[in-house]
Amino acid sequence: MQSYKVKAYGASNSIFSGLKEMEVERYAPKPDEVHIEVLYCGVCHSDLHQVKNDWHNTIYPCVPGHEVLGRVQEIGSEVTKFQVGDIVGVGCMIDSCGQCEPCTHGEENYCEGPVSWTATYNGYMKPQNKDFNTFGGYSTDIVVKESFVLRIPAQLDIKAAAPILCAGITTYSPLKHWGVGPGSSVAVVGIGGLGHMAVQLARAMGAQVTAITRDKDKQAAAEQLGAHEVLLSTDSKAMEAHASQYDFILITIPDAFDINDYVPLAKRNGSLTTVGLLGPYKAPLNNMNLAMHRISVAGSVIGGIAETQEVLDFCAEHNILPETQLIDIQDINKAYDGMLDEEVRFRYVIDMASLKN
Amino acid sequence: MQSYKVKAYGASNSIFSGLKEMEVERYAPKPDEVHIEVLYCGVCHSDLHQVKNDWHNTIYPCVPGHEVLGRVQEIGSEVTKFQVGDIVGVGCMIDSCGQCEPCTHGEENYCEGPVSWTATYNGYMKPQNKDFNTFGGYSTDIVVKESFVLRIPAQLDIKAAAPILCAGITTYSPLKHWGVGPGSSVAVVGIGGLGHMAVQLARAMGAQVTAITRDKDKQAAAEQLGAHEVLLSTDSKAMEAHASQYDFILITIPDAFDINDYVPLAKRNGSLTTVGLLGPYKAPLNNMNLAMHRISVAGSVIGGIAETQEVLDFCAEHNILPETQLIDIQDINKAYDGMLDEEVRFRYVIDMASLKN
Repeated sequence: MQSYKVKAYGASNSIFSGLKEMEVERYAPKPDEVHIEVLYCGVCHSDLHQVKNDWHNTIYPCVPGHEVLGRVQEIGSEVTKFQVGDIVGVGCMIDSCGQCEPCTHGEENYCEGPVSWTATYNGYMKPQNKDFNTFGGYSTDIVVKESFVLRIPAQLDIKAAAPILCAGITTYSPLKHWGVGPGSSVAVVGIGGLGHMAVQLARAMGAQVTAITRDKDKQAAAEQLGAHEVLLSTDSKAMEAHASQYDFILITIPDAFDINDYVPLAKRNGSLTTVGLLGPYKAPLNNMNLAMHRISVAGSVIGGIAETQEVLDFCAEHNILPETQLIDIQDINKAYDGMLDEEVRFRYVIDMASLKN
Repeated sequence: MQSYKVKAYGASNSIFSGLKEMEVERYAPKPDEVHIEVLYCGVCHSDLHQVKNDWHNTIYPCVPGHEVLGRVQEIGSEVTKFQVGDIVGVGCMIDSCGQCEPCTHGEENYCEGPVSWTATYNGYMKPQNKDFNTFGGYSTDIVVKESFVLRIPAQLDIKAAAPILCAGITTYSPLKHWGVGPGSSVAVVGIGGLGHMAVQLARAMGAQVTAITRDKDKQAAAEQLGAHEVLLSTDSKAMEAHASQYDFILITIPDAFDINDYVPLAKRNGSLTTVGLLGPYKAPLNNMNLAMHRISVAGSVIGGIAETQEVLDFCAEHNILPETQLIDIQDINKAYDGMLDEEVRFRYVIDMASLKN
């Protein structure tokens, strides 16, 4: 297969000393693949977890990026959905087994095949072959199977839309799965890249939305995003006053925390869902508090491909866009610091033209 | 109000040195109350938790017993559902606010009133007045509001039926709530008083049922109760071989355990529900395992009054009975030891005639 080198930004080893410019190999598209020129790539907290090997499964070199927005450069001989020049997107997955029950029901993100789904970067979700790796959107070009490529609706600003491909779908999928709609009372905990999308999406679905943040500075922004109410998680009196108020609590905190702090907010039969792969909570869950109101604690990871298209179309229809700050790729390490310090409002997006300079 | 003393068995103080015979006061029934002569009373693990003050909320003297089966002795002037001589039951609750959303929807067990529901013994679920106490079925007589008294179907053996009033409803309610029926794949963890009811109930609902126990000696019994398969929780290979197999996992373990051991057994979208009030699990829940298959962890506590009548009728219809060992009340402390040593198969029931001797 014909390969060529492209410019990328990645981490070369597990001693994380920042991302550096590097080259990765790309191949000419197979018959069912699309070669995409990357125009914009969102910066997700997972990118940082992965390059720092927080999950103890990173394969180096690691080139992150799973909020990829680009232009079709070339298509394989059997591709029918896309044409050269189309504006397209790639999210967190680029393949799955296609055979298992979840895959055949459009939930490739819950693939039960031998390696689960193939992540856009860092390879298989269940690695069997440590030599197999994938490189993400922090690169000039990417080649992806047609069935994992999304259409970007013309109404969406291409400079800002990329985060819908992870932050958008990761929050849209559980909101839909747990039946959020008119009349629902929803709390979104953590108003960052994911949370700021969740507030907009839940509001557009017709829910009554409360944003919960520990950061007083985000109060006005959360209201502008559509929150009917903003609660400070550090204000224990206000938290107590909101006990048993929410049908659904979507938690987007990106690091281990104590979920017992949020259980009392749920109504009878309510659910709390933590998105993202945090590992263990900070403290053992107290079943007493769950049982007394038949509350559920759940997890959810991204969403299926059809559902990702759905959230892109939903955002176009409801005028929802991520709030973004464009950066050059040379500033990526500074951006990671800004993410950790919660300075970003609310998502950094890399203008990939900077990598061509 | 006219009061009189009746014989009972209870714990007189927090230094648990076994139950002793004592006297408690009962009152003549109010217009909406029923005076019941207690014939049989089941012995629940909660009785032991409560008398030992494991939940740090015990009000002494503590007279346990919330699987109460008896005969109507006397009725208040406005009672219409029962007549003197009727065989009736009382479960874990004897009152609730009647006004809140759960109460008006027949889920008194999730009462959101100021004191939550009133337990058959040990008073309010949210005590506000430490002087208010209730005394359970380890007594010759009990007086209960008509609307919290259950009809015992004539087909049920009165010597064995009492445990349906707690062990039965506590497992029936979550099986129903989580939609168990034909085609469901259900695991019941812990084959004791509750688990042995859950196996029978889930089987009668049409589910494929696996019993999970750490006790090899319970294997044959679990099969006789209707389990299609029995898994030893100590056999890690067998546990691994059953990964992602169950839609619903009902956990009846009566003491703190590590729920992470059971999460991998759940299918995508599956739920694990722990019944009973255990407090914190032994270790922090790992959200990674939940998220990768959108699994939920929940709690559930007993069931509503209408649903308790439903499970009594369901047991009558499907020839389901608790497996019981009749004891005299003088043997109650020995029975508690037998419960802790897992010697009981599967529920002790006190023949309350022994208290009259």
